[in-house]
Amino acid sequence: MKLRTNRASPFARKVRIAAREAGLGGRIEEIETPVSPVAANDELARENPLVKIPALVTGAGEVLYDSAVICEYLDTLHEGVKLFPAAGPRRFAALRLQALADGILDAAVLCRYETFARPQPLRWAEWIEGQQRKIFGGLAALETGVDGWSGEFGIGQIGAACVLGYLDFRFPDWDWRTGRPRLVQWYETAARRPSVRDTAPS
Amino acid sequence: MKLRTNRASPFARKVRIAAREAGLGGRIEEIETPVSPVAANDELARENPLVKIPALVTGAGEVLYDSAVICEYLDTLHEGVKLFPAAGPRRFAALRLQALADGILDAAVLCRYETFARPQPLRWAEWIEGQQRKIFGGLAALETGVDGWSGEFGIGQIGAACVLGYLDFRFPDWDWRTGRPRLVQWYETAARRPSVRDTAPS
Repeated sequence: MKLRTNRASPFARKVRIAAREAGLGGRIEEIETPVSPVAANDELARENPLVKIPALVTGAGEVLYDSAVICEYLDTLHEGVKLFPAAGPRRFAALRLQALADGILDAAVLCRYETFARPQPLRWAEWIEGQQRKIFGGLAALETGVDGWSGEFGIGQIGAACVLGYLDFRFPDWDWRTGRPRLVQWYETAARRPSVRDTAPS
Repeated sequence: MKLRTNRASPFARKVRIAAREAGLGGRIEEIETPVSPVAANDELARENPLVKIPALVTGAGEVLYDSAVICEYLDTLHEGVKLFPAAGPRRFAALRLQALADGILDAAVLCRYETFARPQPLRWAEWIEGQQRKIFGGLAALETGVDGWSGEFGIGQIGAACVLGYLDFRFPDWDWRTGRPRLVQWYETAARRPSVRDTAPS
């Protein structure tokens, strides 16, 4: 399988961590692919019309996206502990946690574009503030929820690790750790997992 | 169940259509909820820390988001034709089509914010062009794929209907119909479904 990825992308990192947790790391060739929201990329667009990473080319030659779809697909290819609970309340708790992490990441990536890609005179402070409300509200929900994770490291926790790693990478000044001792403690352990350590953004 | 929704939101519409297709319309109270990416909304934030709609409060009092998670949850509550295939290639084709539709909608909603919410002097033409590449690339993929849908109306087709309805609603000048005859023909039939007709944006 071939994965279009990028070492800075938190959504691609979700897939890279999931692949390693599922024991599939050796079956996936990671193809570093630069992306920008304002640049055309015909090669990537042929695989994913949304011109986004991650995109996975399966062994059968099908292309899958987005990160949630790829992760669920990879989870069907192994017999270990599943990253997605099969059904019932545990499944929907995991999917909601993944959606929470993805939503925080969407907001954080929009902040990155606003403060880095967009020309300085066109930046809008209220936009950043609105996205930060989502990010800090989301972090508060993670801090509240973390005690219920009880050692699990499934798709929701993978998303949470990608959130915290991305904030450290792009927005260290926001200091997500202050006032969130349980999340800090959880992340200290999570960050030592080989799947997380080996996929640190750069 | 209670659904935080908004008659202009294409993501909320996905859930509203899915609920009707699943025969659950009568069990869901739809609560019209104004949202803005730059305004605080403490009431909504208490249910969804991402301050987004749709959000569903289940019968057990749990809150679920985002639209994909809510739709999959609703699909477990009925015994009719399932909106999400259970497994295998059909499941991943449906999930990819949903992701394609969601990605087009994300880009279209960002265009809406850029051209409506953001103050005029802060708008960035290249941002719009970048999002339009995703939208028109995505529409081309829908036009190519529609012949393979063979009468199915599952989660992927629900997403596609929400895309086309949203473009008609917010960007009629973009004229998505030109050059996409198969998608036009498909949408003419889809738009007559009661679930689609009853949830038209306004």
